[in-house]
Amino acid sequence: MDPDVLSSSLSAETLHGSLTDPAIASMNLLNELVETYPLAISMAAGRPYEEFFDIRLIHEYLDAYCEHLRRDRGMDEAAVTRTLFQYGTTKGVITDLVARNLAEDEHIDVAPESVVVTVGCQEAMFLALRTLRADERDVLLAPAPTYVGLTGAALLTDTPVWPVRSTEHGIDPEDLVLQLKRADEQGKRVRACYVTPNFANPTGTSMDLPARHRLLEVAAENGILLLEDNAYGLFGTERLPTLKALDQSASVLYFGSFAKTGMPGARVGYVVADQPVAGGGLLADQLSKLKGMLTVNTSPIAQAVIAGKLLLNDFSLTRANARETAIYQRNLHLTLAALGRRLGGCPGVSWNTPTGGFFITVTVPFAVDDALLEHSARDHGVLFTPMHHFYGGKDGFHQLRLSISLLTPELIEEGVARLAALITARLP
Amino acid sequence: MDPDVLSSSLSAETLHGSLTDPAIASMNLLNELVETYPLAISMAAGRPYEEFFDIRLIHEYLDAYCEHLRRDRGMDEAAVTRTLFQYGTTKGVITDLVARNLAEDEHIDVAPESVVVTVGCQEAMFLALRTLRADERDVLLAPAPTYVGLTGAALLTDTPVWPVRSTEHGIDPEDLVLQLKRADEQGKRVRACYVTPNFANPTGTSMDLPARHRLLEVAAENGILLLEDNAYGLFGTERLPTLKALDQSASVLYFGSFAKTGMPGARVGYVVADQPVAGGGLLADQLSKLKGMLTVNTSPIAQAVIAGKLLLNDFSLTRANARETAIYQRNLHLTLAALGRRLGGCPGVSWNTPTGGFFITVTVPFAVDDALLEHSARDHGVLFTPMHHFYGGKDGFHQLRLSISLLTPELIEEGVARLAALITARLP
Repeated sequence: MDPDVLSSSLSAETLHGSLTDPAIASMNLLNELVETYPLAISMAAGRPYEEFFDIRLIHEYLDAYCEHLRRDRGMDEAAVTRTLFQYGTTKGVITDLVARNLAEDEHIDVAPESVVVTVGCQEAMFLALRTLRADERDVLLAPAPTYVGLTGAALLTDTPVWPVRSTEHGIDPEDLVLQLKRADEQGKRVRACYVTPNFANPTGTSMDLPARHRLLEVAAENGILLLEDNAYGLFGTERLPTLKALDQSASVLYFGSFAKTGMPGARVGYVVADQPVAGGGLLADQLSKLKGMLTVNTSPIAQAVIAGKLLLNDFSLTRANARETAIYQRNLHLTLAALGRRLGGCPGVSWNTPTGGFFITVTVPFAVDDALLEHSARDHGVLFTPMHHFYGGKDGFHQLRLSISLLTPELIEEGVARLAALITARLP
Repeated sequence: MDPDVLSSSLSAETLHGSLTDPAIASMNLLNELVETYPLAISMAAGRPYEEFFDIRLIHEYLDAYCEHLRRDRGMDEAAVTRTLFQYGTTKGVITDLVARNLAEDEHIDVAPESVVVTVGCQEAMFLALRTLRADERDVLLAPAPTYVGLTGAALLTDTPVWPVRSTEHGIDPEDLVLQLKRADEQGKRVRACYVTPNFANPTGTSMDLPARHRLLEVAAENGILLLEDNAYGLFGTERLPTLKALDQSASVLYFGSFAKTGMPGARVGYVVADQPVAGGGLLADQLSKLKGMLTVNTSPIAQAVIAGKLLLNDFSLTRANARETAIYQRNLHLTLAALGRRLGGCPGVSWNTPTGGFFITVTVPFAVDDALLEHSARDHGVLFTPMHHFYGGKDGFHQLRLSISLLTPELIEEGVARLAALITARLP
């Protein structure tokens, strides 16, 4: 009997490969730095603004949902209580309310049965990739750089992600055509292309209307799904239609998140999958089957909190977030202005100018690696995210992501000043 | 451009294999029958008793947790609010309270950092299997019959499950030795053995103390993990120590569920994984990394509800569930007595006599298939679960599972009468 047998059997070689992937290491490093340097100004975290959080809202939202069940659904008290306390249906107890929200805010018309309410948008991504990944021929396309949560879901499902070129206008539909051809030549089966048309994480870029139409055309011609992630779409002054709203060919599977627009702590997101599946039913039914084996169902209490917010705001999260959107817009403009004042004209230093969302991409003429980030946290008191984390450590070594969502005007001024000190010290 | 390209590409052949597995089909069939025959007496659902549900409790639990954060953790109002509203740490915000509950109810002594709070026990199972499944050599052992949720998590991670013989005293440690030998001979690597020592789902059986010690011995000698599921342990009068409480070799990874003891609608479970991993840290840290890519974190609001119940009951769910346990015990005795009155002495008909939990196994001298279940629902007005669903459709065709958790004395009397009519009509 060897007491070391077990612990030595738990090692990098014998655990799932995703655990040693750079994407996972990245997320851990960032979390550690935040804990190690709590006083550093964080332009790294993409968390929503906190000023309007109020614990009483949770109680009000719960009450509003219970009242809705009584009044609009005709439930007696036992049925109301059972809806919140007991296991619920796998697709969720608020699919009808989510559909009303999509009609109100995005002019997307979907039947409640095509919605699956998930534990944040992250679970929705996992379910979609797990459903679509049948064997080793299957690959997913995604813009480079891309959201780390997408990379994570792909790792958990052993799905290779092939990059598609991304420009200042988001994913490039013509490069998508090239990548589809390349995949076909290599005997691969492209199941879907992930895309964030509005204020993408990490770049902050958006697709213009012609590019949206062209992307839909490419998807329909090639019979691939588009996985549209719209976590930040609400937070802009100019709002273009989503791919889902423009879709005429059932090409778009739509990921929704209430983390930024509802409440992060509810951990409620959803996926709309109204594609018919050979043999009957919708793709949503297949996703729901897998959800039953993954988390059984999303907490009805958490769903009730989000439902209450929808009910108390006539189903419009655009209106419910008017104050937050104004703050994100202010922060975006203040940060861009501060960058202009502190770094304008510096050789090799530039940034993009997103019109909404949480993120700005800054380009510098030197390598932005994790060592530089640690130096910045320790010696300059400012945190950002090196862009290479969103390229799986394979590119983007001269860029960094700034997040503006949690800041105040004072913190922006001081944060950009500290960042400018770090950058200018490194210029030739 | 072919509008059918996409939908025909979404078919059984091109979607993940788990979607056509009999285990998934099983769960769907059972759900459909419940919807189709809502007036049938359900001796199928393993849901907790509902009489003591009260919507006001949700508000009280939330308040109790907030008060705990203020009083015991010294948080100001902004920090309390942020804890509930914002994203939380991946391992969970109530790991310390879970550890106190384990000490109180199970005499299990664990550090909070070895706990990962999950979206129900189901997510914990997925995380464990995903972490432990490195390549195609890896297999999992589990008693036959076994919980369908374990089968589901195995399907999602492409993990083969090899059966271990189960008797009236639960899993047979000597057959485990044989299966380990067999796996070794076939070049397989057994990563773990799943086991439910207390009132197992689906059989209702429990392991005696010598069998628990022997199982731990076999695990330690062979360097395999035991995945202990204790969803029903609280609901018995005679309570034996868990494997985790007896474990001297860090062999046991412990799955906890608050679905039956706390509140199903919170969807909060957890895993204790205090095994050291080569290279540093605990197995819990690895599970947490994968959770970050699967659901990010468990809703802090849902965690707060469970935490409030723990706080208001001095961390003892045994005491908090005294009324429920008494009802489950009553239902178990009434069901066993009714079976004796209605079916005692019938040739080839027998049942086991669990001392706790939700389930009873009934054996009959004819095939119990899904067609019989549908006939029973339609013509006799009673639902049960054919045992073959827990054998992956490969065995158990003369058994059925009865669940007693949701019933009243009147429903038990009538349900067993209907079941007896179905059974006696089929006896020779």
